[in-house]
Amino acid sequence: MSLRTSAHPSDLLTLLRERQPLVQCITNAVVTGFTANVLLALGASPAMVDIPDEAGGFARIASGVLVNLGTPTGEQRDAARAAVAAAAEAGVPWVLDPVAVGALPVRTALARELLLHKPTIVRGNASEILALAGAGAGGRGVDAIDSAEAAEEAARSLALLTGGAVAVSGPVDLVTDGTAVVRVANGHALLTRVTGGGCALGAVMAAFAGATTAIAPGSGPDTDGSARASRALDAAVAASSVYGIAAEHAARSAAGPGSFAVGLLDALAALDAPAVRAEARLS
Amino acid sequence: MSLRTSAHPSDLLTLLRERQPLVQCITNAVVTGFTANVLLALGASPAMVDIPDEAGGFARIASGVLVNLGTPTGEQRDAARAAVAAAAEAGVPWVLDPVAVGALPVRTALARELLLHKPTIVRGNASEILALAGAGAGGRGVDAIDSAEAAEEAARSLALLTGGAVAVSGPVDLVTDGTAVVRVANGHALLTRVTGGGCALGAVMAAFAGATTAIAPGSGPDTDGSARASRALDAAVAASSVYGIAAEHAARSAAGPGSFAVGLLDALAALDAPAVRAEARLS
Amino acid sequence: MSLRTSAHPSDLLTLLRERQPLVQCITNAVVTGFTANVLLALGASPAMVDIPDEAGGFARIASGVLVNLGTPTGEQRDAARAAVAAAAEAGVPWVLDPVAVGALPVRTALARELLLHKPTIVRGNASEILALAGAGAGGRGVDAIDSAEAAEEAARSLALLTGGAVAVSGPVDLVTDGTAVVRVANGHALLTRVTGGGCALGAVMAAFAGATTAIAPGSGPDTDGSARASRALDAAVAASSVYGIAAEHAARSAAGPGSFAVGLLDALAALDAPAVRAEARLS
Repeated sequence: MSLRTSAHPSDLLTLLRERQPLVQCITNAVVTGFTANVLLALGASPAMVDIPDEAGGFARIASGVLVNLGTPTGEQRDAARAAVAAAAEAGVPWVLDPVAVGALPVRTALARELLLHKPTIVRGNASEILALAGAGAGGRGVDAIDSAEAAEEAARSLALLTGGAVAVSGPVDLVTDGTAVVRVANGHALLTRVTGGGCALGAVMAAFAGATTAIAPGSGPDTDGSARASRALDAAVAASSVYGIAAEHAARSAAGPGSFAVGLLDALAALDAPAVRAEARLS
Repeated sequence: MSLRTSAHPSDLLTLLRERQPLVQCITNAVVTGFTANVLLALGASPAMVDIPDEAGGFARIASGVLVNLGTPTGEQRDAARAAVAAAAEAGVPWVLDPVAVGALPVRTALARELLLHKPTIVRGNASEILALAGAGAGGRGVDAIDSAEAAEEAARSLALLTGGAVAVSGPVDLVTDGTAVVRVANGHALLTRVTGGGCALGAVMAAFAGATTAIAPGSGPDTDGSARASRALDAAVAASSVYGIAAEHAARSAAGPGSFAVGLLDALAALDAPAVRAEARLS
Repeated sequence: MSLRTSAHPSDLLTLLRERQPLVQCITNAVVTGFTANVLLALGASPAMVDIPDEAGGFARIASGVLVNLGTPTGEQRDAARAAVAAAAEAGVPWVLDPVAVGALPVRTALARELLLHKPTIVRGNASEILALAGAGAGGRGVDAIDSAEAAEEAARSLALLTGGAVAVSGPVDLVTDGTAVVRVANGHALLTRVTGGGCALGAVMAAFAGATTAIAPGSGPDTDGSARASRALDAAVAASSVYGIAAEHAARSAAGPGSFAVGLLDALAALDAPAVRAEARLS
């Protein structure tokens, strides 16, 4: 039974600030610092717990979990398996960012395996979503070759498979729960000139999913499938929108990609719900 | 026999700038870059040597060693064991930052093991110090749940156990050698919004300990216990104070956590001894 | 047969911006983020693919490969072996940055082994180049103890051994293909106060080598030795010069090492060919 009560990104930002979700990040070596700083600026609490004997236990007490496959060492792969299994069992939302899946073999196999635990949100560029859905050949790394729209059907089918949401990054982000499709037109091209510009968005999605899930009464695995998918959609849309608006603010005074990245953290911290309500461009 | 000749943080900053201590950092994947930049801005020389067959040999020639347990991979755990044993044997001061100890099992066991080599300085938040002293249940990661004051007794007993100093981070930092207690009221809340804000302070303590220890004539393990503890206390107080003053300077012109982190590096490089003498708030 | 047609750094910058070379980085944990941001700001596309079962295959499709030995974990060492063998076989240019070679045993052995695959460019400070050429004792980490000039003979003999170029960093960089020697007087002392200041230059060299190599018709291993060496020399000189000019621009408005690092990224993105033509100081 669907309890579709779509929450606006501005309301979810307020909620996130109140709840300060604890986000476990298992992510790549390039973007760890930037990702943690984005979460702190937003109002969430990051924790990088990514060794095998600690990751599963921590996932049970985290508000949300991010698994990003950018530089998957052996220990990280085992940690990801443990964290995802624990999160799925405990009803903790988790986000899969399948960096360069399709183009590289180890992570492609791992992503397919993790997918069985039904990620709350999958976030990637069109090449990655196409590859994960079995419909594309993969990109050449973190760059999007295909446009977000090209992955709409793949994203829908992937969302129906996971019972969650799928977000495809592009000039206009596309987010779907398999049924509804929301386009988020916030963001700025400078995000593609900063490493972690996309990866950090995955962490922001885990933060919003963590804040949102905590609303639901009870614990344990979600049993109401469509409510789960709706919440996931709302969280992914809120993350794309809030992050994109902050990027727009940062771009106004940036002299290039260096000052843009610094300004993005300042803008995330300064952003408030009224600005998000006024500036979110959803369709 | 105590030779308590307390050195002011301003004098120790001058000494550090002259000696440019070489600081070996075995630290977590999130904060490596920021930690190295903090050390360089301060006037120290960072070296991340954290693989098993290199860490021990390097610790013998380093001025100081930092072991931070934030993301302890298998290789880092072995490297930490080797570095700490070598440092202890060679009389090189070393700092233990027991990130999330108490909350997570692998690092908790490792921290207890490393403690046998008597760290010159232990630096953590109240939850971590309580857990390491066996008096608390541990926090939920890098966040302090308990106030620094709550850990005073635990810090004292831990310092008496190690024969060094223990520093507890909080709005007012508390530093003790088991006998004397110094409170450092420098710092700024924005440090908690930047990843590595606390972790980098551990490296700064290793730099001050390295610069201070080099004063002592002779080499090999310290035999005069109370002189060792006093020097450790002075180094930890100097680090907290200098780092905190730089944070205050940076906060004046920061627009948020992003520009604050950038400004902190600028402020550390610009800070001079007279400013530290004028602005240190010790009690 | 030499086809020495020396290309000016300004022309190579234009070429790099057109070709957007894909640069595989196997680099140390401290500088991953900064290195990727430098490449993105410059106009190249970074990819950190550094696990054993992916690194070799990716090296075949990359434009250039960087192997930096700063924190060589076991997996990275195996990945470097695979990437370098594949790059050499496929004619993909690769850069070796032998961080702290001579001073530390594991990386020294690995660097000697990788050298057999004839790096297109070797980039290091004088201590590292002397050690790699078998003529020095090694430094104390990433700091240069010897001046660049002190390593001229070692650099020449190393270049003749690899059939590529060797670049020695210092206040004035020295680049040689074993025959010609070019001195690049661009740069700024603040680069030594930012972690990754030197390491990122190695990645920039891989980007220029990738952009330059793609001009050559055909594929597979280079057979014309002197053309290979000349192209490598041009690429290394262009990288040193472009990066150094951007550093000079950034230093003009920097308040310290923090704002300098941010400004360096902005300056790299803003730099155009006419400025490089006017400001390159080669001799």
